[in-house]
Amino acid sequence: MAKSLEYLTEALRRLPGVGPKSAQRMAFHLLQHDREGAAMLSRALYQAVESVNHCALCNTFTEAEVCDMCADEARDRRLLCVVETPADQVMIEQTLTYKGLYFVLMGRLSPLDGIGPKDIHLEKLLARAADGVVGEVVLATNFTNEGEATAHYISEMLKARGLAVSRLARGVPVGGELEYVDAGTIARAMLDRRST
Amino acid sequence: MAKSLEYLTEALRRLPGVGPKSAQRMAFHLLQHDREGAAMLSRALYQAVESVNHCALCNTFTEAEVCDMCADEARDRRLLCVVETPADQVMIEQTLTYKGLYFVLMGRLSPLDGIGPKDIHLEKLLARAADGVVGEVVLATNFTNEGEATAHYISEMLKARGLAVSRLARGVPVGGELEYVDAGTIARAMLDRRST
Ligand SMILES: [Zn+2]
Ligand SMILES: [Zn+2]
Repeated sequence: MAKSLEYLTEALRRLPGVGPKSAQRMAFHLLQHDREGAAMLSRALYQAVESVNHCALCNTFTEAEVCDMCADEARDRRLLCVVETPADQVMIEQTLTYKGLYFVLMGRLSPLDGIGPKDIHLEKLLARAADGVVGEVVLATNFTNEGEATAHYISEMLKARGLAVSRLARGVPVGGELEYVDAGTIARAMLDRRST
Repeated sequence: MAKSLEYLTEALRRLPGVGPKSAQRMAFHLLQHDREGAAMLSRALYQAVESVNHCALCNTFTEAEVCDMCADEARDRRLLCVVETPADQVMIEQTLTYKGLYFVLMGRLSPLDGIGPKDIHLEKLLARAADGVVGEVVLATNFTNEGEATAHYISEMLKARGLAVSRLARGVPVGGELEYVDAGTIARAMLDRRST
């Protein structure tokens, strides 16, 4: 087979959830039916790798030093909501129940996978939460075992520094991942959030 | 969300079988955990789009005018095996029962999807099969409805030009796609091929 086709098939396997068969199928599809899409994806990957960084304040993906939301003067700077991923942040925004700011961990504590406090940027969170303006930290990690353990760890860490910490109410189904929960449920959980 | 991250998510949806959720998941994964993989995939896509063409003889993907197999003097030039995809060709090669050359349709007749004779390069196949050296054309399209219809159409077309045409024996399960059939079954079907 053509060398650059083999290389493409190999590279497609770097995508999560893509095995050898589907990588080959994707490569053939792009070359046979969608070369424009392939070129577009090539440019998009290059551009993203070159330009996307982490927000200095909330740690989410952004092309600027500080992301649009952190720079938005209309948000309530006394509230800081901690989420695992940008997708979770999007879900919470869709509920229209929260007007504060965010901190995006980009992960969760997972000792079995070797993911510890440093990997989810807890020092950055600590500095952010202790800015003297934040009055309440709302923990909105997933209600999975790992998400709960992460929330517990962060809660202890922040309360030791005298910060008020709350947790989304258990309107979110136990074991549920925020990204897959309907906005109504998250809205209720946000309104019912309790201190921890 | 960062513009170039949105653009990347959109571009990933051009991959077959990738919906909005998995595109987002892929984009986050690459930026968070595998920027090297993202850069590699970007280069691989660019390279493939720039350098991969169709073999002038067999129509498969190649970076040269004529692919390695068509240029291989050791292959039996009297036999021409017609397959739907390069993956099918790889499967047949793995059976070690065939030493002739190939023609890769890059598809199959599918009137419902608007795929007609021109889309599967039947004029190119006709010119190739009528080179005066090919003595038998072995039809190895899939044993699906569309693959069978394609084989029938090609068979009629080539026999009208006085060419000998055979079909893989029905050792391949009816409804089966070659790519997913074990090599032993394909080997038996190759040995039992019958004229049509
Ligand atoms: Zn930010
Ligand atoms: Zn060739």
